[in-house]
Amino acid sequence: MKKFVNDPKQFVPDMLKGVALANPDLLDYVPEYNLIMRKGGASHDRVSIIQGSGSGHEPAHVMVVGPGMLTGACPGDVFAAPPAEYVYESTKRLASDKGVLLIVNNYTGDKMAFEMAAEDATDEGINVKLLFVNDDVAVTDSLYTVGRRGVAGNFFVIKAVGAAAEAGADLDEVVRIGEKVNANTRSMGVALTGCTPPAKGEPIFTLADDEMEMGVGIHGEPGRRRDTMGTADEIVDELLEAIVGDLPYQQGDEVALMVNGLGGTPISELYLLYGIAAERLAAMGITVHRSYVGEYCTALEMTGASITLVKLDDEIKELLAAPAEVATRVF
Amino acid sequence: MKKFVNDPKQFVPDMLKGVALANPDLLDYVPEYNLIMRKGGASHDRVSIIQGSGSGHEPAHVMVVGPGMLTGACPGDVFAAPPAEYVYESTKRLASDKGVLLIVNNYTGDKMAFEMAAEDATDEGINVKLLFVNDDVAVTDSLYTVGRRGVAGNFFVIKAVGAAAEAGADLDEVVRIGEKVNANTRSMGVALTGCTPPAKGEPIFTLADDEMEMGVGIHGEPGRRRDTMGTADEIVDELLEAIVGDLPYQQGDEVALMVNGLGGTPISELYLLYGIAAERLAAMGITVHRSYVGEYCTALEMTGASITLVKLDDEIKELLAAPAEVATRVF
Repeated sequence: MKKFVNDPKQFVPDMLKGVALANPDLLDYVPEYNLIMRKGGASHDRVSIIQGSGSGHEPAHVMVVGPGMLTGACPGDVFAAPPAEYVYESTKRLASDKGVLLIVNNYTGDKMAFEMAAEDATDEGINVKLLFVNDDVAVTDSLYTVGRRGVAGNFFVIKAVGAAAEAGADLDEVVRIGEKVNANTRSMGVALTGCTPPAKGEPIFTLADDEMEMGVGIHGEPGRRRDTMGTADEIVDELLEAIVGDLPYQQGDEVALMVNGLGGTPISELYLLYGIAAERLAAMGITVHRSYVGEYCTALEMTGASITLVKLDDEIKELLAAPAEVATRVF
Repeated sequence: MKKFVNDPKQFVPDMLKGVALANPDLLDYVPEYNLIMRKGGASHDRVSIIQGSGSGHEPAHVMVVGPGMLTGACPGDVFAAPPAEYVYESTKRLASDKGVLLIVNNYTGDKMAFEMAAEDATDEGINVKLLFVNDDVAVTDSLYTVGRRGVAGNFFVIKAVGAAAEAGADLDEVVRIGEKVNANTRSMGVALTGCTPPAKGEPIFTLADDEMEMGVGIHGEPGRRRDTMGTADEIVDELLEAIVGDLPYQQGDEVALMVNGLGGTPISELYLLYGIAAERLAAMGITVHRSYVGEYCTALEMTGASITLVKLDDEIKELLAAPAEVATRVF
């Protein structure tokens, strides 16, 4: 294992310290609960939004905290759900008169932790609702999941509910919007390599020099099949066929198209994939209204990519276009 | 080689097509010269700014074209300077009454191509000036360089001259600002792996499982030495010592601090490095005024990172904080 790390067991807190130090005007950090939160915390004028999940998927979720996005993120260790205590304590700190929305990618461990925390917070009189994200069409049920997994599509759910909360929507309305975006979002990914959690020190899986894992999960869960590496055209065709056929997306639809890197793939290759996907969708009569190319939900240094589509209407378009601010500085 | 690619020889145009398709409102694309340019091209109200360099360093430079940044970028093939013809034709297309600034990272091939193009453009009556970037303190003279190499520091030069041009500065003033920022900027990087240009199909160099290349160049040029992999603390200390001691940066200075990924390193590790660097600088009495963590100048999928410092005064602070827009969409 070659990584930039001191004590592998301290990887997550050492990273979170860096996130906090790089964003002193935007973020506050509560080390006891791995909590990165918006400067100043909650406001009683808006629903608070929290997501946890395991670490190792950055920028999800500690680097998408800020105005118009998450109010806070309380990740667990690498690829491990946060303890229910972290979620509970984060919910208490970020409690708002307008309520708290907890967004959960659909994995068994995360579900358990967030449901326990929600119950405890409800007992304390906090108005809490849960929202599950399950955009990955690759498989139903998986290594850590009953039902479908939540992957990069969570970015769109966060963006939409964050915009709604910022505009003053009440908790029920924020939940409605989150469920609607999740229902219109589908993703699938492919891995060219595994990745190594620092504290484990060994790859979670390995692929031969000519192999890919089609439909991989963001913790290395098996996908649909392991196969010989294809061309970029073949890979995009397979991903899009699975995604488009699922909702299904249809001729005349307007969509947001995301090509997401899994951590180790250079942005040049992601744009190359984007170009192919955009042409394929145009040929199907599906219009790309808004584009996203980069890293949104990763698996440490895994080489690979995923494609996400969101079917848009006027409401979702407006929410995605709303202003927001996060840790990742371009300028 | 496992990459998302169709024909490896078409890697660059296939990528550029993706960049153009993903940014129809922001960018125009002229395939004959690999030219990605700001929508609408030049304006006679502002100096045009062009940078080329080899491909493989994305987002530099085709993804930093836009308002407040480059007017155009005309890259060569992967790790190859653009042909002088591309630079000349791009300069003609983006010629402005206020003049054209050509920014060149200091490599022999780039220097030759840009100097030839500048001469030809001058002969045509275009007011052209050249600006060289050479922020890498690792070595003097290198595989493709006489003097020092230009690396991630070029981002700050582009941002500053882009802001000045947008505000209507004349060509001499834009050159003065660019030279000033370059003079106050220092970088050094470290590689944990090599990388593979698609058309070559083999790594440009390899490192053993416990090795790093300290002071590596962004085309895999040798650095100061090859050594056993160190801890994150040791690596940051060595990079900062080389950088801080060079200008030198001193107690009381205010700086911009960039931790740049070389392509294959996850952002979690970059933030971990950032946290260490920020603490070290604080201990030296150097204040970080502005932070940058992410990928700005890469070497394909190379695993590694570089640190850049810019010594700030009020003028540079204001230029770095000016609004700008580029292809890389966060939202």
